[in-house]
Amino acid sequence: MYYLGVDIGGMSIKVGVVDKAGKIVASSFIKTEKISPEEQIEKVGVQIKCLLESNGIDYSLIKAIGVGCPGAINGKMGIVGYSSNLKWTNFNLKAQLEKVTGKPVRIANDADAATLGEVIFGSAKNYSTVIMITLGTGVGGGIVIDKKLYEGPNGMSSELGHIVMKRGGEPCGCGRRGCFEQYASATALIKITKKAMLKNPSSTMWNLVDGDIEKVNGQTAFIAEKQGDKTAKRVINEYVANLSEGLLDFCNIFRPDAFVIGGGVSNEGKNLTDRVVKYLEKYDYGYKNTPKSAVLIATLKNDAGIVGAASLVAEDF
Amino acid sequence: MYYLGVDIGGMSIKVGVVDKAGKIVASSFIKTEKISPEEQIEKVGVQIKCLLESNGIDYSLIKAIGVGCPGAINGKMGIVGYSSNLKWTNFNLKAQLEKVTGKPVRIANDADAATLGEVIFGSAKNYSTVIMITLGTGVGGGIVIDKKLYEGPNGMSSELGHIVMKRGGEPCGCGRRGCFEQYASATALIKITKKAMLKNPSSTMWNLVDGDIEKVNGQTAFIAEKQGDKTAKRVINEYVANLSEGLLDFCNIFRPDAFVIGGGVSNEGKNLTDRVVKYLEKYDYGYKNTPKSAVLIATLKNDAGIVGAASLVAEDF
Repeated sequence: MYYLGVDIGGMSIKVGVVDKAGKIVASSFIKTEKISPEEQIEKVGVQIKCLLESNGIDYSLIKAIGVGCPGAINGKMGIVGYSSNLKWTNFNLKAQLEKVTGKPVRIANDADAATLGEVIFGSAKNYSTVIMITLGTGVGGGIVIDKKLYEGPNGMSSELGHIVMKRGGEPCGCGRRGCFEQYASATALIKITKKAMLKNPSSTMWNLVDGDIEKVNGQTAFIAEKQGDKTAKRVINEYVANLSEGLLDFCNIFRPDAFVIGGGVSNEGKNLTDRVVKYLEKYDYGYKNTPKSAVLIATLKNDAGIVGAASLVAEDF
Repeated sequence: MYYLGVDIGGMSIKVGVVDKAGKIVASSFIKTEKISPEEQIEKVGVQIKCLLESNGIDYSLIKAIGVGCPGAINGKMGIVGYSSNLKWTNFNLKAQLEKVTGKPVRIANDADAATLGEVIFGSAKNYSTVIMITLGTGVGGGIVIDKKLYEGPNGMSSELGHIVMKRGGEPCGCGRRGCFEQYASATALIKITKKAMLKNPSSTMWNLVDGDIEKVNGQTAFIAEKQGDKTAKRVINEYVANLSEGLLDFCNIFRPDAFVIGGGVSNEGKNLTDRVVKYLEKYDYGYKNTPKSAVLIATLKNDAGIVGAASLVAEDF
């Protein structure tokens, strides 16, 4: 028996056959087209059939299909409420894909699916209640409680990057100021790095970017710090504090078994998580007598879309 | 069939017989004594028997007993991990009370039990996923998801007053700075009120306290505002913003059906909730396209301890 994971993105749609261990045994992708969502899902149906046929996998071996989709998804209803990437509104994706494939379908927000994927098949396999924080252009994430995805009563996914860390702080796209995202995203790290470089013309970070501040990326300060640059060390310390303060808030709300850190910045691995853990320890994981939460790096990486989607239907197996 | 609710406090222990509608049909209280927790629970057993006998309620009509207890409670294990009020450590309250009474027992942190009580029997009866915020000396609260109490994987209750609103802000007892509690508690309201009065000697708030700033309480600014005092209005606006910013964070994390506001400040009722709703609307309930959350005032009031405890076992009925 296999699970099928469908990862719908604004540019492409990936389909994968996932085994019980969470390994992708076959996959394919098609371009996302500017057609109606109904027609697009019909094409996904063809994509699925071709993938199974070309890999000699019998259709009856697929028990159910999980779909990760960007935007505001009502998982209970199976409806894409609104997706700005796809320009889909109030589309019953579940009903359409069930009609096309004849298999039971479950859909979820893609970040939520990726979180569940880490808990069912990835880094957090040994943990039950897990908060995932994705550090990329923004800060995203998901909540898994007792191995089940928390999607909220209206099926709208959480926006973990939009808790305010600093009243009146940096303006945020959400309309408020001082959101977690403004301090802990890769974008924020780059901003802090640039600011520190402009203040410190002798920092070795300037060499790393050939004197061109526009070449600064999320790794610049991490690399320079390893070379002994003090300015870079201060940048990383500030960034670790920003990230950890958010985690402390989630400690006090959820007391999770574990955090999973994903997104570009997570490539820093143990160097990042060790420092975060040190910060959490300093503040008793948010509160006196609070149980400790593990801090893990996401392991599904590029497979997170397909495997996360498949995990949506693997849950009940 | 009745539920039995036991509300254990540092000063007294209240026991109540609660009917299916959440009404207390009989209750009694005894003093909390400086004896071992085992002996104390034996006395509660006697208290329960006397209460039922004196009210002519047959013992067989009690299906189960719920217990609310201050401190770090592991509900799954039935253990009081640590309670500073009671000076109990690693005490298996569930086992002891089951031994004494012969009835199934479920225990929880008292603030969590009060939250569940509001959802099962109180203000939030028509809602499933609810965040309760209690505005008193500090800020406490609880989380109910799909009518079930969220107690965290380790059974440690959440500390909703300890999410940071303002990095580097007011120092907090938890060891961090700028916690929600420092801005939204009754204590914080009093602090803001005093500060505004000292800056504005002509405020009518001075008349309300006979010129003695130590007489300021959580109602002072609310009363003066109704009398047209502009300083008081600014105080209330600041306090409402503080409270609402915290709720916006919880909107973005949980997208709850409803918030329940409890504690002393909640006596202000609709005047408070209407203004909070207005603030939430201004910021789209935290994020664009976010579903609206109702903002309710807790209704169980003085019965919250007993009824909340009873709701712990009423859940599964």
